[in-house]
Amino acid sequence: METSSITSHKITRISGHDTEELDDQLAVEEPLEIQVSYESEGQKGRKSISVTMRTPGNDEELAAGFLFTEGIIYSKSQIGGIAHAAFDENRVVVTFSAGFEPQLGALERNFYTTSSCGVCGKASIDAIKTRSAYPMQEGLVLKKELLYQLTERIARHQNTFETTGGLHASALFDVSGQFLMLREDVGRHNALDKLIGAALLSDQLPLGNHILLLSGRASFELIQKAAMAGISMVAAIGAPSSLAVQLAEESGIALVGFLKKDKFNIYTGHHRIL
Amino acid sequence: METSSITSHKITRISGHDTEELDDQLAVEEPLEIQVSYESEGQKGRKSISVTMRTPGNDEELAAGFLFTEGIIYSKSQIGGIAHAAFDENRVVVTFSAGFEPQLGALERNFYTTSSCGVCGKASIDAIKTRSAYPMQEGLVLKKELLYQLTERIARHQNTFETTGGLHASALFDVSGQFLMLREDVGRHNALDKLIGAALLSDQLPLGNHILLLSGRASFELIQKAAMAGISMVAAIGAPSSLAVQLAEESGIALVGFLKKDKFNIYTGHHRIL
Repeated sequence: METSSITSHKITRISGHDTEELDDQLAVEEPLEIQVSYESEGQKGRKSISVTMRTPGNDEELAAGFLFTEGIIYSKSQIGGIAHAAFDENRVVVTFSAGFEPQLGALERNFYTTSSCGVCGKASIDAIKTRSAYPMQEGLVLKKELLYQLTERIARHQNTFETTGGLHASALFDVSGQFLMLREDVGRHNALDKLIGAALLSDQLPLGNHILLLSGRASFELIQKAAMAGISMVAAIGAPSSLAVQLAEESGIALVGFLKKDKFNIYTGHHRIL
Repeated sequence: METSSITSHKITRISGHDTEELDDQLAVEEPLEIQVSYESEGQKGRKSISVTMRTPGNDEELAAGFLFTEGIIYSKSQIGGIAHAAFDENRVVVTFSAGFEPQLGALERNFYTTSSCGVCGKASIDAIKTRSAYPMQEGLVLKKELLYQLTERIARHQNTFETTGGLHASALFDVSGQFLMLREDVGRHNALDKLIGAALLSDQLPLGNHILLLSGRASFELIQKAAMAGISMVAAIGAPSSLAVQLAEESGIALVGFLKKDKFNIYTGHHRIL
């Protein structure tokens, strides 16, 4: 059941007029099926609720984070256990706690997801906005110099990205800019679900006093997931989309984009960066 | 019903110790619901089959490309018409031709998709690999100098990306390296579905004598969509994933990654680049 996030592949590197054969490192992409096991009205049931293309590793966190950011579970106590299916490293089963009856309606929407999928299974466009389990508090206020430091700090921890150039990362910093954790994945939504799942499983939610750093662009789904975890400050290395900015505004999230070591753009929450 | 792929937003740009208020351009991200309208056993029906987060524009191509790369339709003749729903620019209805009875089983998988979603609705991991409508021919053979020219040529046409920094692009070149078309989207899978949909609607499929250029990384889903359109040569500016390389190998696609103006890596089809 040993899985790896990196695999080796023989490539030909062409540079100018030179040709070189060598072993290159690839980011692993494999499907993960998330199943839930529950008891409802005395009946035991098991249901496949998602297939996502992910980089193996931290699968339990990914499953927990996905269930949380999709609004299926609201606390760690609703999870009885998480384990890979027997002899199947690409299938994870989340067993709900005995007392917890899941909203079967939500499960029956029968949604499916991939690398960067957050809206999956919402049959109606109107139903897209999932509500956060946490009321947004007074948002974090930061000095710009603190944000300047983050890109360098994330680079130090993005090991697999350095090796393969093929992964997205989500990183968490505390209010003083200290690095707390980082998760990587071929799918940026999976990277964030792993990070939020890790926080959920270690009783760190909500993340109102933390900064979320995204290695790439900020889409609607990423801001939605951040809002679900109570995050009030998001900084992205890349560009935000229109709907990401709109949702950040509505959710009280300060959103920074194009973060570099000496500059950035503020899209929402302008007054909270000094 | 006028939609735009760019919107303006007031930002604060922080650079060193300077602060500047200005209007910035954002890539628009909005949900698109794809519905199909069909007649089966004398019964008329309409079904919502996908909600994807996309950049408005070329919605008809996106819908056609999605249905084609998902294996629901196999030819343009199966489409009777494509139009936005009345007063709803975020909903597109594809009406199947009178003679065409869709595989309702496929529709009933009830799948949902977002920006970069290709696996959606395949309840089983085993079912992920969709089969191409076209047998793979003898693959294209190219000189490396031709590939060197592509990055510059795509940059000339990536207008919205230049403005917003927030879009993925898929571009098509002919065997002599001449630029044919480009489609952009916040979701890289949508950009490719738009491009393949455009080719389908203008009777250009299969694309066995073309080069597909991807502005970012190459994932499994992108290679899957390329294979469905009969493409035999894919070049990506970014890194490929392990499963993308594996599928390219199995499908007879030559796959190039990290394409720059004077170098690149060959992952599969080594002998087809001279």
